[in-house]
Amino acid sequence: MQLAHGAVETPIFMPVGTQGSVKTLHPDELDLLGAQIILGNTYHLWLRPGHELIRDFGGLHGFASWDKPILTDSGGFQVWSLAKLRKITEQGVRFQNHLDGAKMLLTPELSMEIQAGLGSDIAMLFDECPPYPCEKRYAAESLGLTTRWARRCKDWVSENQPRSGDGPQRHFGIVQGSIWAELREQSARELVELDFDGYAIGGVSVGEPEEEMFRAIDHSVPFLPEDKPRYAMGLGTPPQILEMIGRGVDMFDCVMPTRVARHGQAFTLDGPIHIKNLEFERDSGPLCESADPHVARFSRAYIRHLFRAGEILALRLLSFHNLHFLLRLTALAREAIHDGNFLEFKESFTRRYTKA
Amino acid sequence: MQLAHGAVETPIFMPVGTQGSVKTLHPDELDLLGAQIILGNTYHLWLRPGHELIRDFGGLHGFASWDKPILTDSGGFQVWSLAKLRKITEQGVRFQNHLDGAKMLLTPELSMEIQAGLGSDIAMLFDECPPYPCEKRYAAESLGLTTRWARRCKDWVSENQPRSGDGPQRHFGIVQGSIWAELREQSARELVELDFDGYAIGGVSVGEPEEEMFRAIDHSVPFLPEDKPRYAMGLGTPPQILEMIGRGVDMFDCVMPTRVARHGQAFTLDGPIHIKNLEFERDSGPLCESADPHVARFSRAYIRHLFRAGEILALRLLSFHNLHFLLRLTALAREAIHDGNFLEFKESFTRRYTKA
Ligand SMILES: [Zn+2]
Ligand SMILES: [Zn+2]
Repeated sequence: MQLAHGAVETPIFMPVGTQGSVKTLHPDELDLLGAQIILGNTYHLWLRPGHELIRDFGGLHGFASWDKPILTDSGGFQVWSLAKLRKITEQGVRFQNHLDGAKMLLTPELSMEIQAGLGSDIAMLFDECPPYPCEKRYAAESLGLTTRWARRCKDWVSENQPRSGDGPQRHFGIVQGSIWAELREQSARELVELDFDGYAIGGVSVGEPEEEMFRAIDHSVPFLPEDKPRYAMGLGTPPQILEMIGRGVDMFDCVMPTRVARHGQAFTLDGPIHIKNLEFERDSGPLCESADPHVARFSRAYIRHLFRAGEILALRLLSFHNLHFLLRLTALAREAIHDGNFLEFKESFTRRYTKA
Repeated sequence: MQLAHGAVETPIFMPVGTQGSVKTLHPDELDLLGAQIILGNTYHLWLRPGHELIRDFGGLHGFASWDKPILTDSGGFQVWSLAKLRKITEQGVRFQNHLDGAKMLLTPELSMEIQAGLGSDIAMLFDECPPYPCEKRYAAESLGLTTRWARRCKDWVSENQPRSGDGPQRHFGIVQGSIWAELREQSARELVELDFDGYAIGGVSVGEPEEEMFRAIDHSVPFLPEDKPRYAMGLGTPPQILEMIGRGVDMFDCVMPTRVARHGQAFTLDGPIHIKNLEFERDSGPLCESADPHVARFSRAYIRHLFRAGEILALRLLSFHNLHFLLRLTALAREAIHDGNFLEFKESFTRRYTKA
């Protein structure tokens, strides 16, 4: 996938830089990780420091000193999960923000305008994400709204031709429809009809059981063009990511790797471990045999000590490692796909990871 | 100064790694900073994870993955400033530790044993640090105790021959005597008589006015051998460091640069700034014109945003920068001393820094 700030090989995991920083990490470390594209959150950056300030600093690339691709979400999901007193109308979403309670209105046009100011390589369309579970009727009406908003986003883009540095900004539609196959198909067809640069599967990672998540993917992917990237939003665990790559998904993002890191959890080839556990008190081995030298030079015993002592370096090492683990996983998946042995790779990884 | 893990050029500033980590930083960044020697805190590391565990991991060098010189303090100052229900006797100090309130006893011999386990290049002798202000009689008695403890430390060292990796561990005595010239002289003479590898000026940075701090230095330095390093413990601001270099001090350590960083303060050539201030909201310049590229690639506006958003990267960048500022300051001081224009350098730096 060729973007304004460079090429991205898929399948790919995208580290999340919610407020213009991938939590605990310096961009030099993102380079060390081989991160090809990172994510920024429209809602957070709109509220603080504001997209106009960021635009004046050369967009998020200039502001955060990151010259590789960036994807921004539409802000809709954060309004849905963080803001108070939400009220959805045809026009957009009215809400009180989580920082100072100020009343705000986010519309499809404004989401596109903010993302244009952020200058991301890929902007996501403004959608409505129904909760799980929800009534079928609600899901159907919500889907209709998402399509009408997609059209308004497209109109804004056509008129304003937003750019990302020297290249055009790309725009991805978001397939909704909750758990109903026919609604997922309808949503996908309506969006594809409008013709975007890529498509995301939304309405997942909202508390549904894992099988519903896979079903949402399976009900959407067949109706999306094969030559355009497909992105599963906000997912997932290492085995879930492999499972979804097998089902045709190209792009992933998730705050989980850095969030669990800040609670002391590290991915290993033998499944996740909690570094604060007593069993690691005298463990001289690295966090994981696959760990990058940036982290592998330290013993589990030392990282455990740092974590217990409240040292920020522990959070850095665990965050770096978990992202490394997922970036390595998607790189190995690309290689296995290329070599024609992806299913074998997926099964052997998952068997060991889940101790099945 | 040649130590077991390498040479150290003086005058030098030593970043403090209280619990086996210079707060917020990775050892790669300490290398980038040109840190030649770092400090570890005996009291903290003794309590957690314990010097025996650290010894089994190859000392603090192996445990923290740092192969350049390390200095450890004696633990006395932390017992004095953090522990509860302290009771000083000829034998040592009884106290309740600040972590779980357990009753403990630290003696000169145990301090030396812990520091031997940590395997530092330089171990500090166990001393008694009188408060400021204190009665002259108290200071005189305390000084006597410090000398007797120094002798016990020396006996323990003679018997046990502690090493730091492949080389011998060095030992520094600590001059006490509070604000009295004749007590400082007496303390220095008694310690020099015992013959250590270097000497520190203790009992400073305990709340005394700046002129008392300088007087304590001036009353101690003339009685210390010129060919051995002189170390002012726990100091100071950039102008204070230059002032003390001018008065013959070779080594400095201080938690202040990283502590104030975590509160948003950055050193600049024009004096300290508070990054959260509104004046930096749209400031596209670097933190300081002297900042290292690792930090200078980011604008003040971006670092302000990160700080306000509670992002750890802000603490990293400010900590890195403040240490860079002091390491650069001591490197420039070495150069100026070499070129014979130290006084000129000191005055021009201080004039600009203090806007005098
Ligand atoms: Zn660019
Ligand atoms: Zn070594």
